[in-house]
Amino acid sequence: MQGVEGLKVVLEERIQSIAFNRPPAELYHPITYTLHSKGKRIRPILMLIACQMFSEKFDEAIDPAIGFEVFHNFTLLHDDIMDNAPVRRGMPTVHEKWNANTAILSGDAMMIEAYRFVCKTPAKHLGPILELFSDTALAVCEGQMFDMQFETRNEVSESDYMEMIRLKTAVLLAASLKSGAIIGGASDADAERLYSFGINLGLAFQLKDDWLDTFGNKQEFGKKIGGDIVENKKTFLLIKALERANENEKKELISWLQKKEFVETEKIASVKRIFEVLTIDKLTQKKVEEYSEKAFEQLKEVQLPKDKKVILESIGHELLGRIK
Amino acid sequence: MQGVEGLKVVLEERIQSIAFNRPPAELYHPITYTLHSKGKRIRPILMLIACQMFSEKFDEAIDPAIGFEVFHNFTLLHDDIMDNAPVRRGMPTVHEKWNANTAILSGDAMMIEAYRFVCKTPAKHLGPILELFSDTALAVCEGQMFDMQFETRNEVSESDYMEMIRLKTAVLLAASLKSGAIIGGASDADAERLYSFGINLGLAFQLKDDWLDTFGNKQEFGKKIGGDIVENKKTFLLIKALERANENEKKELISWLQKKEFVETEKIASVKRIFEVLTIDKLTQKKVEEYSEKAFEQLKEVQLPKDKKVILESIGHELLGRIK
Repeated sequence: MQGVEGLKVVLEERIQSIAFNRPPAELYHPITYTLHSKGKRIRPILMLIACQMFSEKFDEAIDPAIGFEVFHNFTLLHDDIMDNAPVRRGMPTVHEKWNANTAILSGDAMMIEAYRFVCKTPAKHLGPILELFSDTALAVCEGQMFDMQFETRNEVSESDYMEMIRLKTAVLLAASLKSGAIIGGASDADAERLYSFGINLGLAFQLKDDWLDTFGNKQEFGKKIGGDIVENKKTFLLIKALERANENEKKELISWLQKKEFVETEKIASVKRIFEVLTIDKLTQKKVEEYSEKAFEQLKEVQLPKDKKVILESIGHELLGRIK
Repeated sequence: MQGVEGLKVVLEERIQSIAFNRPPAELYHPITYTLHSKGKRIRPILMLIACQMFSEKFDEAIDPAIGFEVFHNFTLLHDDIMDNAPVRRGMPTVHEKWNANTAILSGDAMMIEAYRFVCKTPAKHLGPILELFSDTALAVCEGQMFDMQFETRNEVSESDYMEMIRLKTAVLLAASLKSGAIIGGASDADAERLYSFGINLGLAFQLKDDWLDTFGNKQEFGKKIGGDIVENKKTFLLIKALERANENEKKELISWLQKKEFVETEKIASVKRIFEVLTIDKLTQKKVEEYSEKAFEQLKEVQLPKDKKVILESIGHELLGRIK
């Protein structure tokens, strides 16, 4: 069995060695540019770990794992056009560096490349993996559509929000784990348990991300704090705050949401204070814990000796920033 | 064996019965809208015909045939964003009716749906069909990129242009035929012959389309004549005219290309006259004939009795508007 660090090295080497050298360069260069920029590679790593939990090796899962990572990077490329985002991983986004048409078309080619890698799954598992991959890819599109709709929608409930992040974030993590398990020869029941582990881990991870954006510190979070507040993003925090606020608090919150001109630090501090008064920070942490616990309960149920599960357990804790 | 009209009825009924009823409606409605608008369904019809040539039935090819048609419609949806086209098949394009972000994201979902249909290919043929489909889909993206680049490129040679239309148009027709042949149980050699038939048919078809845009009549062509001239499109006609023109003719042609303000009918008549003086109309017709003949020679080589090939032969002639 390879440890996480070893898997990361093998995977990154494979990813960096992928070259799309055919003409036209303007179609393929943005794909390499996106894929070779340093991401955390969470999805393929989860797939490799899940595979070797059941089969002691991970080589049959490498190509589909890369396929899932290529797909994830494709979604970032197209999402950045839709969100009009200028920077990703510290570098200009594709539509900024080239143009929107190039970003649309290179993204399309990138999704096809993702399928090409997934199609290298060993024949006996190809059918179910492809089905899972396509279902998941569609769910991710659904999640992105809901996310865009929420921007202009007045009422977004907690359950709307949880469904959106399930689709946009959790299902791809879950499908990575389940695919690895299938390729590793897991039973259907164990593959489902890993799927459920992934869903709950993904939900906890996204809620933690919402929390960090307001209550974290820049070192831990990796980007500036308060961005969601500045942009009025309908996060778990804002949705719950609007739900819990009394009349005065709601009025204050909404006046900050409607202000066109403001000092950023002032808006961040004021909204953060309202969140704290409403104990939204603690509520969010509690939710993160709840979903984390659900996740790890599922992992416990997987029918393998404990020592097979420690790697997944530790990367799960790492992702959630928990020391255990 | 079903005749072409019978196949069209079966296919159209299946396509019209496809409903994507899941939320979010804004993601799935544009897919149905695009797919249900009346196209010629050339690609899936070719696949069904090719399949039944070898196996007497076509039912195993229906789902992948729909997959190829969904993919083709996806490319139209995304191309229309890139080309800023307001109308398609007499209806507002998706980015016009909804917006660009919806068109990008629905297109993405549509490509995934295309793969879902292609994945319903019977297991024993799934591997090769998927590989062919992905390779072809990438080639189509390459063709679209070249086409976009040609708009701003000064020098485009005949061979650049032929390669572009091979990628953008011919390979998908060829792959449809080859996939049908594979599913029908054709030998590798016969499947390759149908591929080659499709490439040459596709090239002839596109050149004919270029010719019709300038020299056709509105009834036959289905859209207004002279659009390519008005838009300075680098078609086979313009490329060959620039190549053949003497100094004076070149000067006149380029002055028309550079004019920002002009009376459309005047520009069309003048450029058309230059084409005629340079006998570009006859040259193009000759090229159409050359590629058509190459196509039908390949069909002749297919190791089947003549009566199995008549349907494909007649639809080939129909596509090229030839009476034979």
